[in-house]
Amino acid sequence: MNPYYYNCFNCHSQFSASEIEQDLHYLCPKCGKADKNKPLRGILLISYDYQQLKKSYDRSFFLKQTVGQMWRYPLLWPLQPPEYAKDPPFRKIEWKELFSVDLPATKMHELRLDDYSVKLLDETNNPTYSYKDRASMLVALKARQLGLGAVSTASTGNAASSMAGICARFGLQAHLWVPENIPEAKLMQILAYGGQVHLVQGDYDTAFDLSLEISQRMGWYNRNTAYNPLTMEGKKSGAFDIFIGLRGDLPDYIFVPVGDGVVIGGIYKGFCELQHLGIIEDFPKLIAVQSSGSNALIRFIQTGKFEFLPAETIADSISAGVPRNLYFAANAVRESGGFALEVDDADIVESQKLINEKTGILVEPAGAASLAGYLKAKSVDKIDPNKKSMILLTGSGLKDIDSLKRLHRRPDAFRTEVWQERYVGE
Amino acid sequence: MNPYYYNCFNCHSQFSASEIEQDLHYLCPKCGKADKNKPLRGILLISYDYQQLKKSYDRSFFLKQTVGQMWRYPLLWPLQPPEYAKDPPFRKIEWKELFSVDLPATKMHELRLDDYSVKLLDETNNPTYSYKDRASMLVALKARQLGLGAVSTASTGNAASSMAGICARFGLQAHLWVPENIPEAKLMQILAYGGQVHLVQGDYDTAFDLSLEISQRMGWYNRNTAYNPLTMEGKKSGAFDIFIGLRGDLPDYIFVPVGDGVVIGGIYKGFCELQHLGIIEDFPKLIAVQSSGSNALIRFIQTGKFEFLPAETIADSISAGVPRNLYFAANAVRESGGFALEVDDADIVESQKLINEKTGILVEPAGAASLAGYLKAKSVDKIDPNKKSMILLTGSGLKDIDSLKRLHRRPDAFRTEVWQERYVGE
Repeated sequence: MNPYYYNCFNCHSQFSASEIEQDLHYLCPKCGKADKNKPLRGILLISYDYQQLKKSYDRSFFLKQTVGQMWRYPLLWPLQPPEYAKDPPFRKIEWKELFSVDLPATKMHELRLDDYSVKLLDETNNPTYSYKDRASMLVALKARQLGLGAVSTASTGNAASSMAGICARFGLQAHLWVPENIPEAKLMQILAYGGQVHLVQGDYDTAFDLSLEISQRMGWYNRNTAYNPLTMEGKKSGAFDIFIGLRGDLPDYIFVPVGDGVVIGGIYKGFCELQHLGIIEDFPKLIAVQSSGSNALIRFIQTGKFEFLPAETIADSISAGVPRNLYFAANAVRESGGFALEVDDADIVESQKLINEKTGILVEPAGAASLAGYLKAKSVDKIDPNKKSMILLTGSGLKDIDSLKRLHRRPDAFRTEVWQERYVGE
Repeated sequence: MNPYYYNCFNCHSQFSASEIEQDLHYLCPKCGKADKNKPLRGILLISYDYQQLKKSYDRSFFLKQTVGQMWRYPLLWPLQPPEYAKDPPFRKIEWKELFSVDLPATKMHELRLDDYSVKLLDETNNPTYSYKDRASMLVALKARQLGLGAVSTASTGNAASSMAGICARFGLQAHLWVPENIPEAKLMQILAYGGQVHLVQGDYDTAFDLSLEISQRMGWYNRNTAYNPLTMEGKKSGAFDIFIGLRGDLPDYIFVPVGDGVVIGGIYKGFCELQHLGIIEDFPKLIAVQSSGSNALIRFIQTGKFEFLPAETIADSISAGVPRNLYFAANAVRESGGFALEVDDADIVESQKLINEKTGILVEPAGAASLAGYLKAKSVDKIDPNKKSMILLTGSGLKDIDSLKRLHRRPDAFRTEVWQERYVGE
């Protein structure tokens, strides 16, 4: 048995697993609201019997784990009985081991990271090439446990391609609601996995609403980010992997690109659980990095009010006029002692270029926003440069070739004469 | 000390490391030839003192290793003193752990694999998303050891994007000679890594010759596949990983997509070394799969003669009118007890779709040729279906979005009326 509960972040009601899952609730049955163009109200957080789990999952247990092997601690996932255990072959679907690239001093200097105290958490080689896989995996296992054959999600691109890929693997149908301006590589990726694409004439927020409405009518399992509690739950695994990969020597700051606020919320939740288990005492400060063209969280933290502004940024994965997980994300920033800061698209693009050219890790614009945030925080003395930082690289650049095309023009055809002039002289 | 030698595959002369490396020889100094439009003559194979190495690298040592951690057995690499050891941060550049996906029975059936005896070796999540990284890594380390600041290579796309990415990581300049018709995603990937692209008006063979000529004049280290002995050497790591990942329980057949013949040659060499070390007795049969539009190896095995025919296949990564490693690849097939077989582009595309949709692993056409080969071999009774097979998936589908566009059309915009008709009825 693996008891777990759903707790409302808004009204603090607690529900049993069956109360929520049998009737396919996603938000709090008492106060939950998914209003058009508003952040979600009453998101549900999953909790476990930490006092009980402490006995098996202590610090030394976690220090023995391997990055990405999330099924090795089954009682920290809301699957009952642990779904994957029924089907051994699926145990092999795990993240890859490429974690926290260390760079030599010269590279650190070129990346303007200056010293060895900065690490990169590289999620670009995940199964579908983004951080979203951490959520999709758990959602797919839950869909299977619930006996549902189809999963539906709204997405700017990464969540959809992730869900489609993981569904392909699990034999589930995937319905993906994406804005018409989705980057072509992501669209093709979804189609290649056999996903059912619904191109929405409108933005992500329109897609969000449509997907809710139709999932409900069709009885499809909905994976909308923040709306489905398992999205943040799956993303908590990032915190565990940071702890495991760094052998418990946690960074002081973690820079996280923020759109809907689910990655930062998930990482926060993961560290909370490590605290509940008595495994860590101090908490890394979580730094939310947003594009100045999509900065609702920053404005909310400043004013205490949510105001809808259409989002416009080159970093499509963190483009969210309505961060659905706004309240919990703001809480994560505040409670961890961190802060939110914005960077321009130009900074993002420059950081993308830096990472690509200096580390050989190909990132998409959103995946580089965290480095832009780190550089800015350092330049305006918002962080202590002697403390340790970690920078999240959330998605592969191959998923957004168009953004690369803006950076690089196709070279002219090679001509011996030109080459000789340039390299050999007259 | 780590003594190793270079042996000519053609005239069997042996050379010391310094004889070859000091003057930047790539082919045999006695009989080597890189003639236009001909397979290479006198490729060099690296050998070690296996009797000596046996003492430390025995079966139980290898069974304790982890997939992709090639630097854990430093004496099996031609670096002296082991170059990576000088610079601890670089030890972290390793492959990821995503290896040999197990699939449940239903998936096996859908993929027409029928039983659990088939495994997939998934190389699509490597650092630059293809098998080529295994070679590029070793080449980059050697360039650094030789004090050369630039690496040059001809490529249809994957070798170039791999070399550019690895060079970015190592701080080396990369010069890439690619045909003008290179898939756009690969071109953008190279440019993103900061690689110097030379777009060649002509095919891969033209690019090959140009890159040799200019590397030599400029003193750049040349990574042309097969030509540089370290390419096959790096690719031998695939054999070690197969042994390690399967805990010594080797497959009977390994299906390998073949263009230039360096992957299959490398895997063969790796198994030979495991045999020299007394770690394995029986050898997997290596099955070379080629596209019918680029089948020089098949014709060579049938007739004993190389005849140049221009290559034309959707699988650009195995498109090679002149397989540079022809003689050694033919030897690998023969000596391992395997065979070569050809598949049509239509079979390749169908297998690509099967893998994408049924496993959630995104492969490029060349990466799927091996499954097409397996299915064909089974249908014409060329293999014993009760024996174990392994299928190599060599590169990610994100690198060739154009090939996906041929498979999938952009869907129409979502319209509620249409949806209602389709799903809900009148």
